[in-house]
Amino acid sequence: MTDFAATKACFHLPEGMVYLDGNSLGPLPKAATARMTQAMEAEWGDMLITGWNRGGRDGAGWMAQPTALGDRIGGLIGAEAGSVVLGDTLSIKVYQALASALELRPDRRVVISDSGNFPSDLYMADGLIRSLDKGHELRVVAPDEVEAAITDEVAAIMITEVDYRSGRKHDMAALTKKAHSVGALAIWDLAHSAGALEVDLSGAGADFAVGCTYKYLNGGPGAPAFIYVAPRHAKTARPALSGWLGHESPFAFDLDYRPGSGIERMRVGTPPVLAMAALECAMDIWDMTTMADVRAKSIDLTERFVKGIESTCPMLLLASPRDPAERGSQISFAFPDGYAAMQALIARGVIGDFRAPDIMRFGFTPLYVDEADVDRAVEIIADVMNNRLWDRPEYKRRARVT
Amino acid sequence: MTDFAATKACFHLPEGMVYLDGNSLGPLPKAATARMTQAMEAEWGDMLITGWNRGGRDGAGWMAQPTALGDRIGGLIGAEAGSVVLGDTLSIKVYQALASALELRPDRRVVISDSGNFPSDLYMADGLIRSLDKGHELRVVAPDEVEAAITDEVAAIMITEVDYRSGRKHDMAALTKKAHSVGALAIWDLAHSAGALEVDLSGAGADFAVGCTYKYLNGGPGAPAFIYVAPRHAKTARPALSGWLGHESPFAFDLDYRPGSGIERMRVGTPPVLAMAALECAMDIWDMTTMADVRAKSIDLTERFVKGIESTCPMLLLASPRDPAERGSQISFAFPDGYAAMQALIARGVIGDFRAPDIMRFGFTPLYVDEADVDRAVEIIADVMNNRLWDRPEYKRRARVT
Repeated sequence: MTDFAATKACFHLPEGMVYLDGNSLGPLPKAATARMTQAMEAEWGDMLITGWNRGGRDGAGWMAQPTALGDRIGGLIGAEAGSVVLGDTLSIKVYQALASALELRPDRRVVISDSGNFPSDLYMADGLIRSLDKGHELRVVAPDEVEAAITDEVAAIMITEVDYRSGRKHDMAALTKKAHSVGALAIWDLAHSAGALEVDLSGAGADFAVGCTYKYLNGGPGAPAFIYVAPRHAKTARPALSGWLGHESPFAFDLDYRPGSGIERMRVGTPPVLAMAALECAMDIWDMTTMADVRAKSIDLTERFVKGIESTCPMLLLASPRDPAERGSQISFAFPDGYAAMQALIARGVIGDFRAPDIMRFGFTPLYVDEADVDRAVEIIADVMNNRLWDRPEYKRRARVT
Repeated sequence: MTDFAATKACFHLPEGMVYLDGNSLGPLPKAATARMTQAMEAEWGDMLITGWNRGGRDGAGWMAQPTALGDRIGGLIGAEAGSVVLGDTLSIKVYQALASALELRPDRRVVISDSGNFPSDLYMADGLIRSLDKGHELRVVAPDEVEAAITDEVAAIMITEVDYRSGRKHDMAALTKKAHSVGALAIWDLAHSAGALEVDLSGAGADFAVGCTYKYLNGGPGAPAFIYVAPRHAKTARPALSGWLGHESPFAFDLDYRPGSGIERMRVGTPPVLAMAALECAMDIWDMTTMADVRAKSIDLTERFVKGIESTCPMLLLASPRDPAERGSQISFAFPDGYAAMQALIARGVIGDFRAPDIMRFGFTPLYVDEADVDRAVEIIADVMNNRLWDRPEYKRRARVT
């Protein structure tokens, strides 16, 4: 059984704060600052270009980190060894996955997604489809209509497993199976899944998956994304973003592109060395636990929170599925003045976030959130809500970034 | 006049090393480690998500850094205010620029580049053209044939101003003018120009430009890239990579994409916050000089180096243009056993790099390389070459990354 007090002790958490926003940005692993200083001084500073061959904490070279870290992430999401690589941002990785999938289904023109997907995924798909200009259609249906929408016109489904607002969780295995049954491919966005719940990409038969490392994985603001390509596609998927580090032999400087073998072909440009140094420390903490333990604890925490809020705050309407098996690791409540209420909570040290139009979102991250945090959050939320402490002008002015 | 001793004192340079590889990876600005620790602890650690609105050294928020840093870089390359934004990697920015340019010239099918371009630019163009599948042709000509190749079939020229191997410099103003005279657009890759020589994007009339920040700009390994869009195209260029941070209103979470006004539309995903903290310190050093001073000193240094080597090492053949006006800030020599010779030099503390098949490349970066460094490098190179000190088995084994 995981010692969650020990994992919590690995993070810097501001005094007096209950941080329920690790689904937006995970906190700082205490070890990361010293590691970053080492990466700056002993690697960048002293090794300079030789760091590409001998940098990194393991001395394997900066160039090797995207696949080494990819494998560590892969271990949390049920990916086969050598099937995940780190780099770029989630939006870029979505583009790569969808572009590859559409080429693998050249006779089909429909992409299925749902209105609970994160908008950037839809925007990237839209941008790709406009560029291709071949009559592809991005069909965005309601979340519960996805399964029925998967017909034999469909080239690919592109679905975020856990809804960023409600926390509603799709059935990855079932939708993937349905997609395959009609000859379509399945692309999964794990932004709110990786590190949040048990994911079994290999078992579900997913074709492509993408995710970010700054939420549940705690890699830091702007930490890189990752992409998974099922081994059966690794040698046939063509990377539309065909950069030199995805080349079979980048340092031959050939004028012609030849894709690298396997997942390496999904690399594009120079890897984000400094960001990887921080992420490495975040991944160390995952070695102290298992996703089964994290998921069990997450369900305990979210159930405790729902029970606490529903018994004290009748004005808050549960916007997440009631059944923990049908949601990720967050709980959302709808409230018409949710923006102001969230600002009032933040002023009291309970950090969640607001998503338009009326969603108050709270993330539960067992690595550093415990029962006492949940109880304290419930107490403060009940006080703020029942005493209308949010009803002040200063809480109603919206910041540029919410 | 710039105090180059003062700029040199701002960098960490390993004792006893003459670093002539700042055209591959610039050295660590001494101030960057403390700034990074501050970004890790006081921003990521203590501000957590509120850092998006109030992080950054100036407190303007992490979200504002890509355009703020873009403007600082813009000042070194003759870009109009508000026309440069930071993010992603150079390969990704090449893709964005070319995809936009091809859409702005929908009736044309030819892209001109040259065999001196960095291969990743060609690979990205190849990937885009394959995706578009509309019969575009990437016509790669010899560097001195570019001008003649610009005919009225051409949609865009995509040229790296300074050749990464030879240092040969294209005439940006003349080629851009030729392109415009036939109705084509001009995309310039400034990887070996930004911070290396005077660039006047606005004066030359460039349509798009891209570059990286880890070479002459000293942003650190894997530091982000930048893209310039001429103000006349900023409201019409469609970003093929249409991510949420390029949306007119990213935090409205609309399902439909609407490009942001101006250069902001070229943003894609979450910005690389930690990498930007390091880059900020690197940019501070540029405030201590002018590109005119840097260029004048660069020419002095490269002339001194050429003279020194040619008078001592008859076996080294100058592979860069002899006229300093026709080259960037590097000097290359061809030598059949160049790989081994470079390894021998590195073992003696003179750091350059090797580019296949036979190029020994030395970068000159006035911010931290001075006349004494050049003289010392010449002395060591002369010793190594004239005494065949490179002719040992251990120098002939090639590392994975050269």
